[in-house]
Amino acid sequence: MSDNTFGAIEVVDITDPGDPRVDDFRDLNSVDRRPDLPSGKGLVIAEGVLVAQRMIASRFTPHAFLGTDRRLAELGDDLSGVRAPFYRATAEVMAEVVGFHLNRGVLAAARRPPELALAEVLDGASTVAVLEGVNDHENLGSIFRNAAGLGVDAVIFGSGCADPLYRRAVRVSMGHALLVPFARAGHWPADLGELRERGFRLLAMTPDPAAQTLAEAMAGLAGAKVAMLVGAEGPGLTETVMRASDVRVRIPMSRGTDSLNVATAAALAFYERAR
Amino acid sequence: MSDNTFGAIEVVDITDPGDPRVDDFRDLNSVDRRPDLPSGKGLVIAEGVLVAQRMIASRFTPHAFLGTDRRLAELGDDLSGVRAPFYRATAEVMAEVVGFHLNRGVLAAARRPPELALAEVLDGASTVAVLEGVNDHENLGSIFRNAAGLGVDAVIFGSGCADPLYRRAVRVSMGHALLVPFARAGHWPADLGELRERGFRLLAMTPDPAAQTLAEAMAGLAGAKVAMLVGAEGPGLTETVMRASDVRVRIPMSRGTDSLNVATAAALAFYERAR
Repeated sequence: MSDNTFGAIEVVDITDPGDPRVDDFRDLNSVDRRPDLPSGKGLVIAEGVLVAQRMIASRFTPHAFLGTDRRLAELGDDLSGVRAPFYRATAEVMAEVVGFHLNRGVLAAARRPPELALAEVLDGASTVAVLEGVNDHENLGSIFRNAAGLGVDAVIFGSGCADPLYRRAVRVSMGHALLVPFARAGHWPADLGELRERGFRLLAMTPDPAAQTLAEAMAGLAGAKVAMLVGAEGPGLTETVMRASDVRVRIPMSRGTDSLNVATAAALAFYERAR
Repeated sequence: MSDNTFGAIEVVDITDPGDPRVDDFRDLNSVDRRPDLPSGKGLVIAEGVLVAQRMIASRFTPHAFLGTDRRLAELGDDLSGVRAPFYRATAEVMAEVVGFHLNRGVLAAARRPPELALAEVLDGASTVAVLEGVNDHENLGSIFRNAAGLGVDAVIFGSGCADPLYRRAVRVSMGHALLVPFARAGHWPADLGELRERGFRLLAMTPDPAAQTLAEAMAGLAGAKVAMLVGAEGPGLTETVMRASDVRVRIPMSRGTDSLNVATAAALAFYERAR
């Protein structure tokens, strides 16, 4: 144990970029691009002070930090009660470890805990987003950020979605991918039946001009539980899922334009629901 | 003139990546990152079939294309009437010219025409977005895409905004940066007076909990011309601009969350206006 402590946390100075104690932060751009696969390390990496703070507040318990002295000071009291070493390094040493210059100045690593069950995240929820085929990490991150800001209680993953705990998704979500509960549908789209049994009305987003507008559809559902189903940009929801839904809804669009970005479309649905 | 034509367009095969005829497409990631500066080439680059089609339909007249045979065929009739060479190359030769593998398979280049004047883009407009300090190309591109989809007639740039014609902004906008008219305020924020003289009500977006909600603010403005003022994520609009506005509006947010992404916040304002 180092006698160099900052509040309750142990601070360990790292001067050799090859130090194996910081291996969890090594070559982030090339190693462990698929931490969710059995071949991956399974680590969840938070970048920057704000996202690290949210990780500390989440069920993803950090087991190590790597950062500059300045970011250590910025985290300050947030680290009290955290039982994990803070590996302190210069920006230059950090860049050598990580493989690129990280101007956010601090990283936190957590192991991936068991995923929540569908029933766990639906208990007590009245507004959820259900995603199918959303396989872009930035879009996924944006959806979590929008869900947190606009009052969505949980996110459910159907088939074909990317890993919401990948570093880029966590960063774009501003850490909300760690805080908004999510679960995977083990049986897709059969699990939509569980949502319906719990009283959720299933709204499927579509560009179809014959669908109801968001405003029309939400107006009738003020007292109901709502699940908003969103598909990937381009293909949208599969026909099977469309048929399993209760209401088809569209965003009124200007003529001559194609669909909005999937995270933007989801944000409009979340907004209309909260409105 | 090659006798190798496709419809009206001249098709020129490029087999040597060093061919000076494709210099406008060379090393795109390292050269001409600031085409808007006097030191830049001033070129506007469209990537992919859809964005190239929108460039052809815009006031940015392409003077050259570089693409694969497959993308040439996909563009097909869109090229009729276009007076510019199509430099046809394999994906490998293209990658050597451009400096990276471009899976969109086609590029179009246009010279930058004179910018539109503020008065030109305001004539006939009833809904405009006014941006201050939006200096991220992706956010700028998203704002143009959202503006096109959600019925915004024009975009006005205050100080501190990035170049909407930079390649990345054009790509993220899906080409709408070339189609939605925009102008720069030459005198900022004094030019807001011109909007007010033309009957626009100036709505300033803010996270301030004392501001009206979007829904409240827009409800009273159904018949009025509206300018929606949006600042950068983080700092938001400057205090001078806030004071120059007529109404301060906020998006109702869940507790414990920070602001939304600037392009998402703008999309919600555009949506509420169109609603």
